[in-house]
Amino acid sequence: MGGRGRSADLIIDLNADLGEGVGDDEAMLDVVSSANVACGFHAGTPAELVATCRAAAAAGVRIGAQVSYPDRSGFGRRFMDIAPDDLTADVLYQIGALEGIARAVGAEVAYVKPHGALYNSIVEHERQADAVVAAIVELGGSLPLMGLPGSVSLRRAERAGLAVITEAFADRGYRPDGTLVPRTEPGAVLTDSAAIARRVVGLVIDGTVAAVDGSDIAVDAESICLHGDTPGAVEHARAVREALGESGVVVAARR
Amino acid sequence: MGGRGRSADLIIDLNADLGEGVGDDEAMLDVVSSANVACGFHAGTPAELVATCRAAAAAGVRIGAQVSYPDRSGFGRRFMDIAPDDLTADVLYQIGALEGIARAVGAEVAYVKPHGALYNSIVEHERQADAVVAAIVELGGSLPLMGLPGSVSLRRAERAGLAVITEAFADRGYRPDGTLVPRTEPGAVLTDSAAIARRVVGLVIDGTVAAVDGSDIAVDAESICLHGDTPGAVEHARAVREALGESGVVVAARR
Amino acid sequence: MGGRGRSADLIIDLNADLGEGVGDDEAMLDVVSSANVACGFHAGTPAELVATCRAAAAAGVRIGAQVSYPDRSGFGRRFMDIAPDDLTADVLYQIGALEGIARAVGAEVAYVKPHGALYNSIVEHERQADAVVAAIVELGGSLPLMGLPGSVSLRRAERAGLAVITEAFADRGYRPDGTLVPRTEPGAVLTDSAAIARRVVGLVIDGTVAAVDGSDIAVDAESICLHGDTPGAVEHARAVREALGESGVVVAARR
Amino acid sequence: MGGRGRSADLIIDLNADLGEGVGDDEAMLDVVSSANVACGFHAGTPAELVATCRAAAAAGVRIGAQVSYPDRSGFGRRFMDIAPDDLTADVLYQIGALEGIARAVGAEVAYVKPHGALYNSIVEHERQADAVVAAIVELGGSLPLMGLPGSVSLRRAERAGLAVITEAFADRGYRPDGTLVPRTEPGAVLTDSAAIARRVVGLVIDGTVAAVDGSDIAVDAESICLHGDTPGAVEHARAVREALGESGVVVAARR
Repeated sequence: MGGRGRSADLIIDLNADLGEGVGDDEAMLDVVSSANVACGFHAGTPAELVATCRAAAAAGVRIGAQVSYPDRSGFGRRFMDIAPDDLTADVLYQIGALEGIARAVGAEVAYVKPHGALYNSIVEHERQADAVVAAIVELGGSLPLMGLPGSVSLRRAERAGLAVITEAFADRGYRPDGTLVPRTEPGAVLTDSAAIARRVVGLVIDGTVAAVDGSDIAVDAESICLHGDTPGAVEHARAVREALGESGVVVAARR
Repeated sequence: MGGRGRSADLIIDLNADLGEGVGDDEAMLDVVSSANVACGFHAGTPAELVATCRAAAAAGVRIGAQVSYPDRSGFGRRFMDIAPDDLTADVLYQIGALEGIARAVGAEVAYVKPHGALYNSIVEHERQADAVVAAIVELGGSLPLMGLPGSVSLRRAERAGLAVITEAFADRGYRPDGTLVPRTEPGAVLTDSAAIARRVVGLVIDGTVAAVDGSDIAVDAESICLHGDTPGAVEHARAVREALGESGVVVAARR
Repeated sequence: MGGRGRSADLIIDLNADLGEGVGDDEAMLDVVSSANVACGFHAGTPAELVATCRAAAAAGVRIGAQVSYPDRSGFGRRFMDIAPDDLTADVLYQIGALEGIARAVGAEVAYVKPHGALYNSIVEHERQADAVVAAIVELGGSLPLMGLPGSVSLRRAERAGLAVITEAFADRGYRPDGTLVPRTEPGAVLTDSAAIARRVVGLVIDGTVAAVDGSDIAVDAESICLHGDTPGAVEHARAVREALGESGVVVAARR
Repeated sequence: MGGRGRSADLIIDLNADLGEGVGDDEAMLDVVSSANVACGFHAGTPAELVATCRAAAAAGVRIGAQVSYPDRSGFGRRFMDIAPDDLTADVLYQIGALEGIARAVGAEVAYVKPHGALYNSIVEHERQADAVVAAIVELGGSLPLMGLPGSVSLRRAERAGLAVITEAFADRGYRPDGTLVPRTEPGAVLTDSAAIARRVVGLVIDGTVAAVDGSDIAVDAESICLHGDTPGAVEHARAVREALGESGVVVAARR
């Protein structure tokens, strides 16, 4: 893994959150190559996880464990100051649970992508990043960790010998330094399908994105995250997929 | 498996519930050869499951997944009329979660023992019994199901090609027909350590138990369940272990 | 309360489930006069309950506590064999929680309507019906219990001195004996807005409903339950409201 | 309220956490005058809350709502970065639930004491302190908030017109500046019953405590918190109660 998706390897992974009981999972499974499946800590009942894994397997879509803080009432969106050992235990439990379900439907968990506040926390929070990495290592170390390029979590994962999957966001604004525009600021979220599709194609072909100030910045991503529960989500996703196809880019998960 | 533990094979498994946050887990791990570890649906946090599995592994004690209805506030003690597919999903989730944790501590889940109301339900409830069996089959069919001899659950498990582990109860009264004395009736629970120890030795050596009416009945059991959270639990457990040792019976899980 | 809504009192209450995170709560609040607000045991976070109660209060809609079995993963749809005292405690907890939230937004809980499997159970289950009634009595006995005419729950409530609110279902088929057509049988659910509206008007004006065999049966109801989360729910609800208005029936909760 | 408990008013409130499923609630109810009852978010089932409130009422012990972050698996001990409106909703829900249960057993909730990480957070965290205060205000403003003297939470409560109850800790070490010795440092926890009892008597009679450096510091407290779940908890509590009695101090909640 690693390296921008330019000329030599016109292949890109598209990922989206599924099994959260929001959004149109069926439609998204027609578009993405990777499904971040909720593991029950922020959303998803066991029966919903089974249905989601079965649908993903039937669609040939790769399954990732979307692990979260144990925060059902907050949909995993609030930072929790959990001690590393407890967080490791939470992640082990969730990955294991989803692996059991995936195995039962003839599939497997192929990567780990933290959800919501946990995802954001471990961009910088070293002890929590290490705790997530420790869980993957303790499970055998075969699952890549998906996350933000340059994040503490991915650096720690690589240092621990894990594979990583870098991702970019199809509909989020970027600042000139490569970080995301905070949601409280203008330009944080793109809402035009055509613009989103153009951005993704540029990102895959050229490895660059236009930042909010108009400058082109390099963005390194092996996967593109599509939001599945925003207004117009399915429309955006289909536009991205279509534009990639027209540009000769293959949508697929590298396994 | 199968067959009473008489002369030829003076070996017996002792099992107890652990990781439920009640009782003296450490003391019980010195006595038993199999630990029924809670999976979070009736008791147990992920951190507690990690600690329990680690302690069991260190003590050389076999780990079983003590799967339950999703009934935290009722400690899994109330019957729930869950549809078979949903129950299968619940069991998959729990076994998977515990397998993840067991693997992380260098151990493995070696059998499945339903807890509380689910245990009792599937003695007779065919669709729920089938749902539990289906989960084990879908996971590969390598885990034996522990339960009551003659129960619907064990019969269905065997019909599905699963191994089973029959168990008897060290401190429960038996009726002449081999069923347990209901807890609402006299003689339901034995409370004298010496009597409990004698009963277990007789059960292992002779394959018989004295029923409440004084008659000897045949009881087929490959494992003996010790309660870990009743008054005198540890004392009873130690008395059983000591008496078995004095009688030349080896306490061990057959793997 | 009591008595059919004919000529003398052309007024009817319309109720629907809200705050469950499914359906279009805003649209339904324009139609109904009573909101059955989830209390967190089958659906609803505290923040969602606050928002729902605030919206109901702003719309002048009466708030009812939609109490449930503690079955989040099953949306309260599975029977649970809970001991009466424990069920009473569950109901007390939920009503109290919603009362706190209602009070904080300047509203109040005005009735109790059990949800899902609990609703169905106490149509016949005497001990659980008594347990629900006991909770209302222990809270002071001022809240009416909404339910099915002729149900054990309403009979027990009346015997305990509670007020009751009988309800009929706008979109469910009735059998000649006045019971609902099971969902597994043809004719269980009406899906045509006009037919649903006609049925409700007839029910309110004449106190009768056409059963699946075509015969007219008497149905006694002070409130009509509109489903908020089925396909076409909002359309059906608006059709009912409009047809009632054209027939000179006032939609309002009697307080 | 306010003012040290010296000569003129030899009366002190003793409070402890109850209904958490840990510790010896029955024994503690013989000692304390105020019971901080868990509300189900960090511990406690509805049935346990009913039992605890009933026992407290029977013992003539004042009931407080021990509100927590929604963190069952972490026993409410981890900071959660919850938005103020959501936290207010969580607190409303919990106080309401306990009020319902208290009312049902003929008692009432008489104060609010945040638990664990929430307690610690609002010593300094202004927005979360305001969120807790807002919940009490929205409920009518009649419930005092119990907390640490000088904390942001109590200052905000007073500014909002709420009554407050200051508390000191019987078994915690104090630094010369009046703050608690962190649990990671020596002298954080006193473990000798006689020393704990002496400290409480001095605190009540003289309004002072010996800090870890030996200096006497002024501590303003209307209630003394006794831990109910530490080793020797009951012994410590009884020693405190006995020493207070011998010193002519009355243990009682001011209502």
